[in-house]
Amino acid sequence: MVSRSVARTNTCNQQASPDQSVRCLFLLMQSPPLALILAERALGVNTQSLSPELIASAKIAISDTIGVTLLGASSDAAQIARQAASITQKHGPATILGTTLRASEPDAAFANGIAGHAFDYDDFTELFGGHPSIPILPGLLAVGETTDATGIELIRAYIMGVEVETRLALGVHFQHYEKGWHPTATLGVFGAAAGCAYLLNLDAAQTAQAIAIAASNASGIKANFGTMTKPLHIGQCARSGVLAARLAAKGFTANPHALEAPQGFLDVYNGPGNYSIERILDKWFDPPLVLSPGISLKQFPCCGSTHPAIFAAIRLKEHQRLNHGRIRSIEILTHPRRLPHTNQPLPQTSLESKFSIQYCVARALVDGQVTLADFENSAWEETNITRLLGITQVGEHADMVKLESGTFGAQVNITLDNNEQISEQIDRGGGRGPDNPMTDTERRNKFVDCANRTLPNAQVSRLFDTLEQLERIQSISKLVELARPEPNEH
Amino acid sequence: MVSRSVARTNTCNQQASPDQSVRCLFLLMQSPPLALILAERALGVNTQSLSPELIASAKIAISDTIGVTLLGASSDAAQIARQAASITQKHGPATILGTTLRASEPDAAFANGIAGHAFDYDDFTELFGGHPSIPILPGLLAVGETTDATGIELIRAYIMGVEVETRLALGVHFQHYEKGWHPTATLGVFGAAAGCAYLLNLDAAQTAQAIAIAASNASGIKANFGTMTKPLHIGQCARSGVLAARLAAKGFTANPHALEAPQGFLDVYNGPGNYSIERILDKWFDPPLVLSPGISLKQFPCCGSTHPAIFAAIRLKEHQRLNHGRIRSIEILTHPRRLPHTNQPLPQTSLESKFSIQYCVARALVDGQVTLADFENSAWEETNITRLLGITQVGEHADMVKLESGTFGAQVNITLDNNEQISEQIDRGGGRGPDNPMTDTERRNKFVDCANRTLPNAQVSRLFDTLEQLERIQSISKLVELARPEPNEH
Repeated sequence: MVSRSVARTNTCNQQASPDQSVRCLFLLMQSPPLALILAERALGVNTQSLSPELIASAKIAISDTIGVTLLGASSDAAQIARQAASITQKHGPATILGTTLRASEPDAAFANGIAGHAFDYDDFTELFGGHPSIPILPGLLAVGETTDATGIELIRAYIMGVEVETRLALGVHFQHYEKGWHPTATLGVFGAAAGCAYLLNLDAAQTAQAIAIAASNASGIKANFGTMTKPLHIGQCARSGVLAARLAAKGFTANPHALEAPQGFLDVYNGPGNYSIERILDKWFDPPLVLSPGISLKQFPCCGSTHPAIFAAIRLKEHQRLNHGRIRSIEILTHPRRLPHTNQPLPQTSLESKFSIQYCVARALVDGQVTLADFENSAWEETNITRLLGITQVGEHADMVKLESGTFGAQVNITLDNNEQISEQIDRGGGRGPDNPMTDTERRNKFVDCANRTLPNAQVSRLFDTLEQLERIQSISKLVELARPEPNEH
Repeated sequence: MVSRSVARTNTCNQQASPDQSVRCLFLLMQSPPLALILAERALGVNTQSLSPELIASAKIAISDTIGVTLLGASSDAAQIARQAASITQKHGPATILGTTLRASEPDAAFANGIAGHAFDYDDFTELFGGHPSIPILPGLLAVGETTDATGIELIRAYIMGVEVETRLALGVHFQHYEKGWHPTATLGVFGAAAGCAYLLNLDAAQTAQAIAIAASNASGIKANFGTMTKPLHIGQCARSGVLAARLAAKGFTANPHALEAPQGFLDVYNGPGNYSIERILDKWFDPPLVLSPGISLKQFPCCGSTHPAIFAAIRLKEHQRLNHGRIRSIEILTHPRRLPHTNQPLPQTSLESKFSIQYCVARALVDGQVTLADFENSAWEETNITRLLGITQVGEHADMVKLESGTFGAQVNITLDNNEQISEQIDRGGGRGPDNPMTDTERRNKFVDCANRTLPNAQVSRLFDTLEQLERIQSISKLVELARPEPNEH
């Protein structure tokens, strides 16, 4: 068997092997190619009525993603990657957000994809098991810029891309995730390819080719989480999505059965029997997944396991007009699952401070908010903070211990200088989704906090305001112009 | 379990999950990172004595690969890919072989990788289960050009790259291949990363980082064999190899345990238990795999299953000074495994002619050789040919039927106009490796046949002669200059 296979690879791989062809043919006769079915369902986005709620959901995610991309443009990961890939030119068809650089569509998608995930501060959904916007949006912005799409076209392409990648996720999870794949990249590439195909006005057969090409370009393993290679996954994915669509548009060929064929994506990435085509095909746009269950934003630039405790601390600060100087002791109680990585009583580095539930709570009690600057320049060593860290205890919450799911949540108990006890408990997870949306002010604050790392303040406000009106924008190329410092230069 | 995992992905993926970290730590304490061990072994190439035989083996493969890349530069796949990726500039640090284009290192590796595999005419080895040179060489040429490496440095980097990818193959095959991965891409990316790291003069720790980054960029599935997406795998792989090395050189981070960690390359791509680290680590450079078992060239631009019959026909033509006009009937006998895809009595298209054992034998009997032009412009419809096709029978060879391995081989029996019977049998496979090397003349003929598709004849000869002296070349940038039409232009 081995020698037979070797022989085939080596000398006769100009076409599929005979028994493979027979199996493909059998499938072909049974049903149309899965990539074509997906393409046809995805193009159903054209007949979706774009309700104000749906448009708003898409806009919120797109705006947040552009914000974190502007932040990430200054990250070490993004800067090194741009240099390594020679993305250093001032001229080219597509914008590198937050820089004065321009590049080809694939290179721009690559650079913006890395930037947008560099701080792991971008949106997420539970169904996808990852971050739905960042694999898609860099490609859409690049193609949207070169084709000068409208805002509403970008919104439709985004809604479509999220639907494609998440419907696939519903069919392959959580085996796919548990196995070690990074779904944001390995499934996101299909959303990116389909969304870019939409902006290029490809028909269903061409879109199916883009999806089939993407099936050969999915990569990213979780062993590289916690390193710069994690955002690299997204850069590669975003680039491959653009490339797949552009290739398909020009007649580049792939096997339309590349998803479901033997030795196709589903068998190779998940293993036979570890996925469900029925689940993939169920209920497209019913409702659009961007609308429901919707997309969750990450409000604070630190570990999600610390967020409920931060919410509780902010509520104490705001509702009780708490002066942190009056605090005599702090107790933080969570599910035990949250503690191994967040119990950092005295953080020494930026990364440790992002994972210190003690520090995050102290910061929220002092400032009433938690921002990027709080994890820089040894902000965790300020006197106000170290005093609070010295009187903070962390432990397991007696009721939460019993929970098997819904294990986010935290209780913060404070004793004041007059021995008065005040307390807040939050039972939600770390994200701000449709059931608990960030207010417009909170969203603007996050956007400004992110974007002013690479753009002048006035431009940041103008960009945010423009994104709030995205559905009325006639020119994506004018939109991304606002995401460049020195917008009038080129 | 599912909700726990989702929660982790979504909100706390700035570092590995706690139990994953513990497992990594355990491995770490047990042994150094596998990527580092591989890097150290790979750098052993520095202490290898480069015997004339080893240099010759490397040169033959490098020259052949450059030849098929020059051919492939004119392929539809390569042309579409260059357009889709906006590789259309005349200026840039690295050469697109066979064109007047230049590009960044990653883009050049991408374009040349697709070109080199576009006709599936590049070299192969059984151990690798694929094509060892084409994933590596495009990156080496790009980095070799920008760093202006010497010929001997290129040769060492090539020997090292083949060793890395093939030693990995020895540990993961043939489960890896049978599962549906395209090893030329999914394993070649490691050879490319290591080889480029060598030309960038990276140390062992940096080379290990390049290998660990590459672990997140391996892709390519066999369901897309038989389409343009197959050579796309190689373009992506070659680009990712260059990128990994350049990233590592600038301090981009990856998990040094990315190969052997839980949710690392070996577990994710092969599955736990389906690989052997011991086999990966066994016998590096003992001898160098480029030398033994060595690399096989593909002599004819058609399906490998037809090659033994072509050899037999050429031998009949040459040794018996056979005039094809005297042939009354032809019988071709092979192992039954070779017939389903090569029994094409009357080919109608270029692709069919490449898989028609009848046509390939007829062409060899008429011309004494089989070249690229024989599969173009309806060459299969020439009168001399159609007469022979009309008197050709194909069948199973009575002795070969019993074979389970070594199933390449063919017998060609011819009856002449005087009823004389002449016959030749070939029991070898389709490749021309060290035990059956192509003569210098045969290699030159193949090179010229390929390269004159994109280069002027005089330049083709000069390039071939230069490659024959590769170990004496002081400047790779001057070498690749010869692979550009209009070499004096830029």
